[in-house]
Amino acid sequence: MSLPDNFYIRRVEERDFEQVTETLKVLTTVGTIARASFSKLLKYWNEATVWDENNDKQIMQYNPIVIVDRRTESIAATGNILIERKIIHELGLCGHIEDIAVNSKYQGQGLGKLLIDQLVAIGFGYGCYKIILDCDEKNVKFYKKCGFGNAGVEMQIRK
Amino acid sequence: MSLPDNFYIRRVEERDFEQVTETLKVLTTVGTIARASFSKLLKYWNEATVWDENNDKQIMQYNPIVIVDRRTESIAATGNILIERKIIHELGLCGHIEDIAVNSKYQGQGLGKLLIDQLVAIGFGYGCYKIILDCDEKNVKFYKKCGFGNAGVEMQIRK
Repeated sequence: MSLPDNFYIRRVEERDFEQVTETLKVLTTVGTIARASFSKLLKYWNEATVWDENNDKQIMQYNPIVIVDRRTESIAATGNILIERKIIHELGLCGHIEDIAVNSKYQGQGLGKLLIDQLVAIGFGYGCYKIILDCDEKNVKFYKKCGFGNAGVEMQIRK
Repeated sequence: MSLPDNFYIRRVEERDFEQVTETLKVLTTVGTIARASFSKLLKYWNEATVWDENNDKQIMQYNPIVIVDRRTESIAATGNILIERKIIHELGLCGHIEDIAVNSKYQGQGLGKLLIDQLVAIGFGYGCYKIILDCDEKNVKFYKKCGFGNAGVEMQIRK
C-alpha cells in the first residue's frame, strides 16, 4: 500500500508545534513546552549529522517526520528515527525508531504502517545495518506486519 | 559495591583501539576497522552535544566509557550511553545504554554492574527522565539487579 493521494510526508516544521505536541499526547505525557523551545529543538535536529567519513551524502541524525492531510494541512501521524554510529559491525549505523503516534482521528487507515515504512526507508537509505524499536507487547503484531521481528527485552530505569 | 582500588573508569581514548574492539567481540561482530577511522569516531563522539537551552553544563551526547585495570592498563569492560532529546516529557532527555561488554578475563567480578551503575549515574546526572536498554532474555535478571525493570519488547529489522 502506498500513501493515499490526499496525504504527504515531510520533516517536522516549526508550524507543526501545536499539532505535533497534541498528536504525541496519544503516546505519553507531553507537558508544557514553549513554542520557542520547540523551534530551537527543530533547529538542533535539522543541523545534527552523524559522522561519516566515506560518504558524500549527509546523514541526518534525527529524522522526525509527519504525515500531513493535504485537504486540511492536519498532522495525521508523527515519528522519528535516530541514527546512531557504533563501533561494532565495522563502525556500523543503527537506527532507533522513536515516538510513533497516529492522531486518533486518523487511526485505522493504515497510516501507522506507512509511517514506519518511511522511517525504515530513511534508515536503510543511510546504510543502517539494523533498525530497532521498543514497543508494548500489544503492538508486536503491528510491527511484525511492518517486517520487524522480536529481538529482545526492553528494560528501563526511572529517577 | 564500589569499584575495587585496582580499577578506574574513564572515557574511551584513541589508545584503547585494539582493546576496545577486542572486548566488543564478546558481544557481536566487530569486523575490520581502521585505527584512523576509530580516532575520527572518537573525535565525533567527544564533540557531539545535546541541545540544552536552560543548562550551563555541557551535555555530551555519547558517553563511551571503559573500566581499566590499573595494574596492566587493560580494558576490563566497555559501554556507552547515548543521550536523546525528545519532544515528549517537556522536551525530556532519554538515555540509551548500548554495547555493554565485559572482557572474558574479567567476568564474574561484578564489573558489569559497576559499569551499568556508572552509565546510569551519567544519564541521571544529565537529567534523563528515563534510561533504557535492550537485552537478551537471559540478561534480564542481571539488569534487575542493576535497578532496571521490564519495559517492553525490542523489535528489529535488518536489510
